Amino acid sequence: MSALTGGRIRHTVAFALEHPAGSDEEAAFLAAASELARIDGVEAFEILREVSPKNGFAFGISMEFADADAYTGYNEHPTHVAFVESRWIPEVADFLEIDYAAP
Amino acid sequence: MSALTGGRIRHTVAFALEHPAGSDEEAAFLAAASELARIDGVEAFEILREVSPKNGFAFGISMEFADADAYTGYNEHPTHVAFVESRWIPEVADFLEIDYAAP
Repeated sequence: MSALTGGRIRHTVAFALEHPAGSDEEAAFLAAASELARIDGVEAFEILREVSPKNGFAFGISMEFADADAYTGYNEHPTHVAFVESRWIPEVADFLEIDYAAP
Repeated sequence: MSALTGGRIRHTVAFALEHPAGSDEEAAFLAAASELARIDGVEAFEILREVSPKNGFAFGISMEFADADAYTGYNEHPTHVAFVESRWIPEVADFLEIDYAAP
């Protein structure tokens, strides 16, 4: 990941899946999610495990954008929209988006 | 920030303050929080603005530890314990800790 300077944005989402831990379905979802890294403007893409016992999330995705326009382009990109419809909505049990910028 | 490999942990907390946005009290809290960067084992320390409209948090802190022992050492460090008691509990209105590790 990079230092967050200027208008740079770090978009993160913590989530839990409908699938059992360690299941083939879980692995397939994470593999599909990793394809989001290929969308134009996505930088510093990471698929992560969430390891704090203080929340109910099991995974996270973190990515960075050079600016708000790049973030909007990602959100509206057909690959992202299709992923949300076909995988995220049916397979994600709970999630929270948190986005960071420089202070 | 660094790539999360091995046992490395990225500890993050999103939070909202009791203080009005732009107040001297807000600035003083963030300045006090920035001193946490000096505790042994803390790496890649960042104070951040939370910019997503999808949650109620206004700020974030992110830091990394080489491993779980370093994270425990931070949590138990007298400087951290004193900060939680004297500043965090009285001045933070809401918060959520999210910790990430490599998948």
